[in-house]
Amino acid sequence: MQDTASNPLPEDWLDAIKWDDQGLVPAIAQDAASGDILMMAWMNREALALTAREQRAIYWSRSRGKLWRKGESSGHVQQVSEIRLDCDADVIVLKVDQLGGIACHTGRRSCFYRRLEDGQWVSVEPVLKDPDAIYGDSGGTSS
Amino acid sequence: MQDTASNPLPEDWLDAIKWDDQGLVPAIAQDAASGDILMMAWMNREALALTAREQRAIYWSRSRGKLWRKGESSGHVQQVSEIRLDCDADVIVLKVDQLGGIACHTGRRSCFYRRLEDGQWVSVEPVLKDPDAIYGDSGGTSS
Repeated sequence: MQDTASNPLPEDWLDAIKWDDQGLVPAIAQDAASGDILMMAWMNREALALTAREQRAIYWSRSRGKLWRKGESSGHVQQVSEIRLDCDADVIVLKVDQLGGIACHTGRRSCFYRRLEDGQWVSVEPVLKDPDAIYGDSGGTSS
Repeated sequence: MQDTASNPLPEDWLDAIKWDDQGLVPAIAQDAASGDILMMAWMNREALALTAREQRAIYWSRSRGKLWRKGESSGHVQQVSEIRLDCDADVIVLKVDQLGGIACHTGRRSCFYRRLEDGQWVSVEPVLKDPDAIYGDSGGTSS
């Protein structure tokens, strides 16, 4: 909040957004090079303003109730090259360069790693890095 | 509802979904060939079950409060080749073949046709077909 108070963010383009009743919009992160959809998370006004200013993805964590600077723990920062808005002004797409090549907290490239096959969800993408190694839950060593 | 009542849908894979407090999940439609993100809409349990069964995108229209068989007015049906689920089980991706090459009710290929440039939303995709011609608001002629 200090940040926004000391340096007000431009308002017009943010006013165009139709925030939901919790003040949020869904934001879809898409790999700018491959087109793969990496994840979907949520943004409030401050998160989107900071994302645009810093050109890195900053979401609103609904579970933690605070800003989530993607990559703050994992190093898997998303550098934003483009921000898009849909026709209803209630969904955002970010085109990103995914540092480390891993967007998902499970250590996979994309969060959408399960595919419906014959009435079952099947994991179809490999774990590229052990989550314990990513987040250092065991002192930085993988389990 | 007649449909589901007469022929019960398999439940297990639907039970895996974390529906929100309105019984919905966001569903992102992605062009299976180009990787372009076409739109995001919402699905309830019945919409997702029918989407899987019919292999065409069927959403839940929050504004109309009923199932929305994408393309029912426009002919712009989305044929579904793949259904993905994310790590938190609360977002769906559909890989689709977009009939007519137009997903957006504005007559554009994608709903995400506005790009943020220097603090303004700029339309960067052409209207491929006049909406009046798509939806026949003026008897099928374009305005």
